[in-house]
Amino acid sequence: MSQVFERVAFLGIGLIGSSLARAIKRAGLAKQIVTFDGNADHAAQAKALGVVEETARNAAEAVAGADLVVFAVPIGAYADLAAEIGPHLAPGAIVSDVGSVKMAVIRDLGPHIPEGVYLVPAHPIAGTEKSGPESGFADLFEGRWAIVTPPPGTDEAAVQRIVDLWRAVGSEVEIMEPGHHDRVLAITSHLPHLIAYTIVGTATDLEGTLQQEVIKFSASGFRDFTRIAASDPTMWRDVFLNNREAVLDVLQRFTEDLTALQRAIRWGEGEQLFDLFTRTRAIRRSIIDAKQA
Amino acid sequence: MSQVFERVAFLGIGLIGSSLARAIKRAGLAKQIVTFDGNADHAAQAKALGVVEETARNAAEAVAGADLVVFAVPIGAYADLAAEIGPHLAPGAIVSDVGSVKMAVIRDLGPHIPEGVYLVPAHPIAGTEKSGPESGFADLFEGRWAIVTPPPGTDEAAVQRIVDLWRAVGSEVEIMEPGHHDRVLAITSHLPHLIAYTIVGTATDLEGTLQQEVIKFSASGFRDFTRIAASDPTMWRDVFLNNREAVLDVLQRFTEDLTALQRAIRWGEGEQLFDLFTRTRAIRRSIIDAKQA
Repeated sequence: MSQVFERVAFLGIGLIGSSLARAIKRAGLAKQIVTFDGNADHAAQAKALGVVEETARNAAEAVAGADLVVFAVPIGAYADLAAEIGPHLAPGAIVSDVGSVKMAVIRDLGPHIPEGVYLVPAHPIAGTEKSGPESGFADLFEGRWAIVTPPPGTDEAAVQRIVDLWRAVGSEVEIMEPGHHDRVLAITSHLPHLIAYTIVGTATDLEGTLQQEVIKFSASGFRDFTRIAASDPTMWRDVFLNNREAVLDVLQRFTEDLTALQRAIRWGEGEQLFDLFTRTRAIRRSIIDAKQA
Repeated sequence: MSQVFERVAFLGIGLIGSSLARAIKRAGLAKQIVTFDGNADHAAQAKALGVVEETARNAAEAVAGADLVVFAVPIGAYADLAAEIGPHLAPGAIVSDVGSVKMAVIRDLGPHIPEGVYLVPAHPIAGTEKSGPESGFADLFEGRWAIVTPPPGTDEAAVQRIVDLWRAVGSEVEIMEPGHHDRVLAITSHLPHLIAYTIVGTATDLEGTLQQEVIKFSASGFRDFTRIAASDPTMWRDVFLNNREAVLDVLQRFTEDLTALQRAIRWGEGEQLFDLFTRTRAIRRSIIDAKQA
């Protein structure tokens, strides 16, 4: 059973923040939920929707007296916010987040966390292509993975409270070394998003009539990419800027593989195509077996 | 109202062939449906499932007396089958197909179609990642596009019968010049499949433990690609080998765009990333507005 937090402060209350706030409220995991969002409309909406009880005028006010602080803004905004809240964090508080990159989070938050406050970053593998507090929902994390990435030596009780929190909102929890998280996610998430953005971008550069036809006949494969490529631009810009090494590494592998396929098509090497297409089918089978389909 | 066919011969009775046969039967568009499939198990299954009334011992026997012949095998098998059935086609018959590439279909079938028989290729924009006659279903084409690509000068009444047929099974029909079809589909379908196959292939080359984690956390984007990359290997090999020019052309554009993004990530050019990610979001909106989402 998860211990109840007195006051949870959300810095940012968009899709993920508002979903987690809803889930925490529904599960009775907090006595009070407060938010500060640089977008005042989002904060006001969250309050109007009953997602939070209170909106703060600034981040420092939000975290004052909070025993849990959750960063739920794009990663590029972490460092400034952390500098602002650092002196106002309550002793014994836990600082966590929901960002898609973890090494950069520790780099940006770590120096601002005072002695006696615990940094326990986390990343729920959940989301939709929508944005904003009105898009959130309490079920978002049910049956999904949450990866918790404490820096080495983090207080075990603090880690356990974050693990308990994610379990209480329905997630399965995996504890992972932050750098390893960034390499795994570069493959499963960052590269797929980059590729989807690129292919949809290539299509937007087509002349007008052809572009209309691409939209009309998008159900033949293209459509699946547009959903991914509709994700929040600020969030994704920050992901790529903050997981550069791992993304460039896996992108290099991908480009090599694509070049080999291009060559196989040019020279009519059907067997090479067939072999790859057969191997990839087996991976789908594994995902279905792992109940992730 | 669609005119009823006396005898419809399916050459190949996999996912698409069996779905169309089911839809034709349900709509009462044929007095008799017969199939020949080089995979005797598929033919027997289709008969056992009641999808066809009769299985022929060879393609020539299947098309004898048929007033509609539908090629529903991978494109690489068209030429040999066409040479075999050419002398057995009934006068006035229509030869059509469901292939994903259209110039190559006209190239491979055209020379074998005798005077007085009409070639009207078609391509339903519908499918799943599954294969085989047991995967087919009569609703597959409902509300989906069917593109009809008659060669220049094709008998108008024959074209109209194929248009009527697709409308009768629930599709919206677009008539398109075959070469134009191949360019549009290279973007909307062939490139997305190639990219999906590549990225899933890149992941299969990872060392064992990392690969297991990719499967475990696939819901973060990768999963959507694995569905596409689970499509029929033979069919897709033949698509790439038979739409080479258009695929290589659009792949070249994609690679240039990807290289530009790679450079933007390497040099931390956030504005360029943000601009692209904002443009691609608008395309998703267009697809939703076009009711193709």
